[in-house]
Amino acid sequence: MKRRQFLTTGGVGLAASTLAAPAIAQSMPEIRWRLTSGFPRSLDTIYGAADVMAKFVSEATDGKFQIQPFSAGEIVGTFQAVDAVGNGTVEMAHSSSYYYVGKDPTFAFASAAPFALNTRQQNAWMYYGGGLDLYNEFYKKFNIYMLPGGATGAQMGGWFRKEVKTVADLNGLKFRIAGLTGEILSKLGVVPQQIAGGDIYPSLERGTIDAAEWVGPYDDEKLGFQKVAPYYYYPGFWEGGAMVHFFFNRQKWEELPKNYKAIIQAAAGYANVDMVAKYDFKNPAALRRLVASGAQLRPFSQEILEAALKASSEVYADLSAKNPDFKKIYDSMASLRNDSYQWWQVAEYTFDNFMIRSRSKL
Amino acid sequence: MKRRQFLTTGGVGLAASTLAAPAIAQSMPEIRWRLTSGFPRSLDTIYGAADVMAKFVSEATDGKFQIQPFSAGEIVGTFQAVDAVGNGTVEMAHSSSYYYVGKDPTFAFASAAPFALNTRQQNAWMYYGGGLDLYNEFYKKFNIYMLPGGATGAQMGGWFRKEVKTVADLNGLKFRIAGLTGEILSKLGVVPQQIAGGDIYPSLERGTIDAAEWVGPYDDEKLGFQKVAPYYYYPGFWEGGAMVHFFFNRQKWEELPKNYKAIIQAAAGYANVDMVAKYDFKNPAALRRLVASGAQLRPFSQEILEAALKASSEVYADLSAKNPDFKKIYDSMASLRNDSYQWWQVAEYTFDNFMIRSRSKL
Repeated sequence: MKRRQFLTTGGVGLAASTLAAPAIAQSMPEIRWRLTSGFPRSLDTIYGAADVMAKFVSEATDGKFQIQPFSAGEIVGTFQAVDAVGNGTVEMAHSSSYYYVGKDPTFAFASAAPFALNTRQQNAWMYYGGGLDLYNEFYKKFNIYMLPGGATGAQMGGWFRKEVKTVADLNGLKFRIAGLTGEILSKLGVVPQQIAGGDIYPSLERGTIDAAEWVGPYDDEKLGFQKVAPYYYYPGFWEGGAMVHFFFNRQKWEELPKNYKAIIQAAAGYANVDMVAKYDFKNPAALRRLVASGAQLRPFSQEILEAALKASSEVYADLSAKNPDFKKIYDSMASLRNDSYQWWQVAEYTFDNFMIRSRSKL
Repeated sequence: MKRRQFLTTGGVGLAASTLAAPAIAQSMPEIRWRLTSGFPRSLDTIYGAADVMAKFVSEATDGKFQIQPFSAGEIVGTFQAVDAVGNGTVEMAHSSSYYYVGKDPTFAFASAAPFALNTRQQNAWMYYGGGLDLYNEFYKKFNIYMLPGGATGAQMGGWFRKEVKTVADLNGLKFRIAGLTGEILSKLGVVPQQIAGGDIYPSLERGTIDAAEWVGPYDDEKLGFQKVAPYYYYPGFWEGGAMVHFFFNRQKWEELPKNYKAIIQAAAGYANVDMVAKYDFKNPAALRRLVASGAQLRPFSQEILEAALKASSEVYADLSAKNPDFKKIYDSMASLRNDSYQWWQVAEYTFDNFMIRSRSKL
């Protein structure tokens, strides 16, 4: 691993006078960082946000600050990314906080959790509702600093070999789903399965598992699930607006000159809006292709959604009673969420509703 | 007006050697730009995006590139901003493209138009669906270059002194509404009124006009319309996701070093996601306060919405027949819009719908 280097001149190969050197060296040091992604390169949309960010940082600094992204597994695996950042193995990561609920369930809400926020509510909470500050206080325990770094939009509920209509149909269902959502759905009889991305298809084909969730149409299409588990359920109520994040080793972040911090913050903001736009552009066509090749769209029944909401509320109450960090962050998220629907319903929802119903007249 | 200055040394007061100077001067010149905003400072959310952008640019360049925002009217008025940028009176503006439909109706869709895109669809179109490239080709005629620079989310339909339930109720209605929407609504009998922001309240109070639209709860609240026109209609179907823009004089933009362009692009992207987050955070509480102080929420009737959709389609067809630029950009927007609802309906809408209906259980 290359470490950060402060040069004594203003640029490689330039002979600046000693008078000029200090100020220039302070503001434009040559830095090489490694970024471990929580995602494989094959997820070009979500993985690509790290490339977008790194490209802006390089261009904005005339190549003096280089961030090199590595695919999940090249340096460390997805679930080791936060540890690797915290202990300085790498300077930063691009991953999603909820992969680390094994450390503490509080990690979940920075990404998504059952019946939490949609994409825009998540940004409102992070940037203005106190979410980012609360998380960066919490993340101190893990020696990391976070900036929002993209989102997928609302995800799909996954691929099912058979239809599930009632809560009874979930009993014993072997569902590839992880983390806090697995725990919540297990209260409804689901048997959560932890399976790596590449093993999902054969597991569904052989019937080792009954269902699997991945992301949404654009990413799911690459894996061909419709051939072995054609019922494509929606919505992914556990990922109403799944956010991903840039994580920084705290000392590395704090040591950055102010101008480099500003460049990273701006580039991360751009990556955030850019990833959502890319998904929103790519998902509609992918969904049409999936339906044309055999995917059968099914909404989760009201009974299942309501039972899952009730189970979620119970799990959140249990965790809040045991874990003050969880309670503080859950309460903040829930307060913003619960206060926002009157407005959301009036403007956005009514507009979208009319447009969707008027599709044939457009 | 201060013009861009290339310094021959690496920074103010630094004595760099002549060997070092050229490379440093090329990448980090001292630049002072003026930005004319299309908005008054009192609209802190929308005006504020220019401050957010300018702050990032200054911090990212250690103060070498300074952009100074001026409120609408301080240098030129809102409707002169694009001309002032094109002719070099100022280097850039932060305004909204649809203010300039008097030059060419094609300006509209970069911002919003009746039954066009919601906020996320607009970003998908701009960043990935070709919208930004099409506009920057079109804007060459006006010697300007554009980057997205924020959005308000879906707006409200405005404040009405009396209820409007049918299309017949619109006949003769003096409605403060501008541009293309005014033209479309005039087909339903509305008499569009052009009135500056500060004159709306007294005009409503005296009954000189019957209704007025402004932005949404957070901005509307400052003007106190609920006291004189209590019926607060939704949705603002002509502004489903109103975008605002950074406009640059083309020569000034092209002369920028590559690193400064990257910094501006990243900062503009941050300003875009930041403004939406700020509105999404501030609007819900403002709507509650408005309702508590007398605003009466009313949805536009299905009859009015359908008649307005029909009138819009007619106007778009007329303009497309006459104006090739309009047709090219309208077709691109409409294609993305019409293709996106199947996906939008499945994931986002179903999730939001369940959450809104479950409000009492959260």
